[in-house]
Amino acid sequence: MGAMTATAPDQGPASDSEDALTALTGLVKDDLAACNRVIIEKMQSPVALIPQLAAHLIAAGGKRLRPLLTLAAARLCGYPAGGPRHVTLAACVEFIHTATLLHDDVVDASALRRGQASANALFGNEASVLVGDFLFARAFQLMVQDGSLEVMAILSAASATIAEGEVLQLMTQNDTATTEQQYLDVIEGKTAALFAAATRLGAIVADRPEVEKDALETYGRALGTAFQLIDDALDYSAEQERLGKTVGDDFREGKITLPVLLAFARGSEAERTFWRRTLEDGAQEATDLAEAQALMQRHAALADTVARARQYGDQALAALARFPEGPERRAMAGIVEFCIARAR
Amino acid sequence: MGAMTATAPDQGPASDSEDALTALTGLVKDDLAACNRVIIEKMQSPVALIPQLAAHLIAAGGKRLRPLLTLAAARLCGYPAGGPRHVTLAACVEFIHTATLLHDDVVDASALRRGQASANALFGNEASVLVGDFLFARAFQLMVQDGSLEVMAILSAASATIAEGEVLQLMTQNDTATTEQQYLDVIEGKTAALFAAATRLGAIVADRPEVEKDALETYGRALGTAFQLIDDALDYSAEQERLGKTVGDDFREGKITLPVLLAFARGSEAERTFWRRTLEDGAQEATDLAEAQALMQRHAALADTVARARQYGDQALAALARFPEGPERRAMAGIVEFCIARAR
Repeated sequence: MGAMTATAPDQGPASDSEDALTALTGLVKDDLAACNRVIIEKMQSPVALIPQLAAHLIAAGGKRLRPLLTLAAARLCGYPAGGPRHVTLAACVEFIHTATLLHDDVVDASALRRGQASANALFGNEASVLVGDFLFARAFQLMVQDGSLEVMAILSAASATIAEGEVLQLMTQNDTATTEQQYLDVIEGKTAALFAAATRLGAIVADRPEVEKDALETYGRALGTAFQLIDDALDYSAEQERLGKTVGDDFREGKITLPVLLAFARGSEAERTFWRRTLEDGAQEATDLAEAQALMQRHAALADTVARARQYGDQALAALARFPEGPERRAMAGIVEFCIARAR
Repeated sequence: MGAMTATAPDQGPASDSEDALTALTGLVKDDLAACNRVIIEKMQSPVALIPQLAAHLIAAGGKRLRPLLTLAAARLCGYPAGGPRHVTLAACVEFIHTATLLHDDVVDASALRRGQASANALFGNEASVLVGDFLFARAFQLMVQDGSLEVMAILSAASATIAEGEVLQLMTQNDTATTEQQYLDVIEGKTAALFAAATRLGAIVADRPEVEKDALETYGRALGTAFQLIDDALDYSAEQERLGKTVGDDFREGKITLPVLLAFARGSEAERTFWRRTLEDGAQEATDLAEAQALMQRHAALADTVARARQYGDQALAALARFPEGPERRAMAGIVEFCIARAR
């Protein structure tokens, strides 16, 4: 993906960015282990299919990026290692994320998730919907255990915003007249809102002033937006093994993402006819994905999507500036690079 | 449905029971109107499809049975008319109920809901799942507005229990070896848990002692169980127009309900072969529903299901005894009769 790497020449090699995730994970290692124990404990139910299906996703070994961010943000704000509040809330965040994945798999009819067969392919749509509901309810039970109305306000609002983003995505699907603003609304809802809540929680448990809560929320929202922009670029570029999912999913589903919007806007009338046929009418042939990729290459659509992610990444870095230099801040800055470096 | 009415000879005609719903609705008329305003206001979203889809269910004109119970229970406990807490929480309860209906329609692939085309048939499974998520999140936002951890604990636990009941139902589907206890666990989860929470909330907002909270919870749980038992009987007996949905849904889906369990247990080996073919193997022919109904008639399966509902109804009535005589108590007792009288 040469065109994409060219947009971020000042970044180190990918292995440095992988190290950033390792660094962050190492920094909150014990808290993350405690969070994992809460997750395993709270996904239990006498109804055997629930832990079974939940374990399928848990075992699939996600990066735990969102709970990691809650743990790191809390530590950045001076909240003591060992918790327990940031541990509990990190588990909440992961439950909400997992619930949306389960419901998203139903929506997208995806065959793969993190390189494995998706839960709905294995267990059926019905079970995926219901176990998602269970995890969502469990997240709120955990919040009750934590006992803060402020936390509940943030995570219930984020949950509503996620659903709004997903519905908006449904409404813009197959519609090449979607605007960039609508696309940004979609990804801010479906992805950035939970990142923003996850990081704000760190300042809340540490009882920091409003400006610090806002700064961490800004960091999370910008990071989440960058993360999703890269995801949307990757769907047209990375090898399936690297991404852990089928390349071309978005194309096949007629999802309107920034790479599409850029290629469409910059394309000839003949190219727009191609995009309308494949994305609006859903009339796709075997060679169409390669053609879509070639058009994106021609119009630098992926490179410019990555450049846009870089801008959001810089916003995230700027928001960190008000916090004291140290291993937490370095690790959280490293995560910005990690998210963007996935596009190489 | 002569066999069914015969089991409740001491009850007045059906019109008296309809009057019970009218009486309850009339008693909390202004509060119900306020609750409806909260529902309309809080289902709004800049994402147009959300209120559109939610309105489809709201406009379908449910009885609002669950929020009515919250309002009536609060009034029974001396909470002042006008609220606002019982109004807010009644709206929460209806949002959670509506969310589960939306997700249930996906699960069941039902074509009809309250006599209208179901939301998922009109808007697609994806939108139904996501709007359900939105309403669930909104319910928690309303709870935050109310500000009581006790309320949140009850409704988040009820939400988890509902999901468990629905998953258990999925696991017992197509399995004639399901036990009565498993069936009871299913309906206590999927239906009775929310009734129990809805009524307990009445005592909570009125700040009544624990024994009264427990009594109202017992009333709600028993009433909800009776309600579901009657629903399961109706699926094999009432005319579609009366029920507002397709008769035989449960049969076609291979749902294992009490009428099936009774007919199966009391049936000959040949009859069991019939049940296994139709419910386990799903090999159904045009005349099989009529045959199922005939077998149930032969073994008094519907009448005995109604008799079981009557027992739960009596438990509900007994739980009301500790509250002062008056219009609220009479109306809540009347609702027990209303739920059971649907089976005539």
